[in-house]
Amino acid sequence: MTSYVSTAATDLVPLSPTRRTQLNRGKERARADRAALREVLDASLICHIGVVIDGIPRVLPTAFGVDWEGSDPYGTLYVHGSVAAASLRVATEQTICVTVTVLDGLVLARSGFHHSANYRCAMVFGRPRLVEDESERLRALDLVVDHLVPGRAATLRPHTRKELAATRVLALSLEEASVKARAGDPADEPGDVEAGIWGGVLPLRLVAEAPITSADADDRPIPAEVADRAEALGRVT
Amino acid sequence: MTSYVSTAATDLVPLSPTRRTQLNRGKERARADRAALREVLDASLICHIGVVIDGIPRVLPTAFGVDWEGSDPYGTLYVHGSVAAASLRVATEQTICVTVTVLDGLVLARSGFHHSANYRCAMVFGRPRLVEDESERLRALDLVVDHLVPGRAATLRPHTRKELAATRVLALSLEEASVKARAGDPADEPGDVEAGIWGGVLPLRLVAEAPITSADADDRPIPAEVADRAEALGRVT
Repeated sequence: MTSYVSTAATDLVPLSPTRRTQLNRGKERARADRAALREVLDASLICHIGVVIDGIPRVLPTAFGVDWEGSDPYGTLYVHGSVAAASLRVATEQTICVTVTVLDGLVLARSGFHHSANYRCAMVFGRPRLVEDESERLRALDLVVDHLVPGRAATLRPHTRKELAATRVLALSLEEASVKARAGDPADEPGDVEAGIWGGVLPLRLVAEAPITSADADDRPIPAEVADRAEALGRVT
Repeated sequence: MTSYVSTAATDLVPLSPTRRTQLNRGKERARADRAALREVLDASLICHIGVVIDGIPRVLPTAFGVDWEGSDPYGTLYVHGSVAAASLRVATEQTICVTVTVLDGLVLARSGFHHSANYRCAMVFGRPRLVEDESERLRALDLVVDHLVPGRAATLRPHTRKELAATRVLALSLEEASVKARAGDPADEPGDVEAGIWGGVLPLRLVAEAPITSADADDRPIPAEVADRAEALGRVT
């Protein structure tokens, strides 16, 4: 999975695991450093938000953006949605969980028990803050668009008042986060290796296909930022 | 995204939305039929489970399998994990949420507001059942492996007693589920279309790269089920 943003700024801030983000199992898979967190967030286009509504968890996929240069030294994750969305309305009253998962491959062991996946996963916990400051709202919305396609936001017209009034923006500090990852070969029992069945990894990758221009558009070239995004993901035609 | 299993058996059982699975927003994106649910589950390799621990949601990625031929006419989703995993231990005492998301493309509108994603997403709610019956446990574990690589389970040795004792298997009925999807062009404002900026979709696809044989293996050919899986996903080399 291509990491298209350089990892530089946040390497010095240690992750601060709490009880929730301390991994009880698979400690060998924990990577308690900020660079790993940034790499996972950069490598994934969407996150899954967990909120509790009437005592029951709800897990929702959504786009996100990250600000590594803002006032929070840990970095800030932004999500947005309609003001009518219940999930974002209740989120600011509770600790939520945001999980970002990159699936890198299928681990095809010699036994069912050792089948697994190669992946990178970040979990962030915290009580999100409703973003009310106008300039932070605008910056957050740009970061969400630019997380999908870096450079896209600068090519777009300003938001209208009506659009902004219809949009809720939440900020979540990346202070409380954990990263877990697996890579490499299956961990087979020696006896199973000797038995001779094939074992290995089927690597997976999210790639872009050729961009499709809207049907309502006249014929115009694909803009540079879209071509670059397709290139960075690895494009198949 | 290739749907590699045929959708036939479950088309006749209507989805039974409850308040949780009735979509308050984007009703046009709801596809209240079983074939759509099956298509989403078939198209995704992992799910995200939401459980509540000490009042706080936790969202965990994991493999899953689905039984469309069992005693539950709605179908049964299976997940498994270590008996030591807290998330699966507490899950049987509560209503959980399992979300399966397939990201099909980035919707690059002429305005930030109309940027979106093309996706298919299934959400399932229910109180999972601890699977204790030995034959159901074995079948569930096979289904999880075969969801990753159809046909793989039949090539593997039986589980050992020790492996089975270390594994927890949960079953979740697919009775309470919703499917939401978006496809196609951006929904732009007419004025933005006239302004002339490029709008369109960047299609995305999870593909397989060439299988990597384990370092501890002697040179042997890639088995048919692995080659078929790579082929079904769409393989890049």
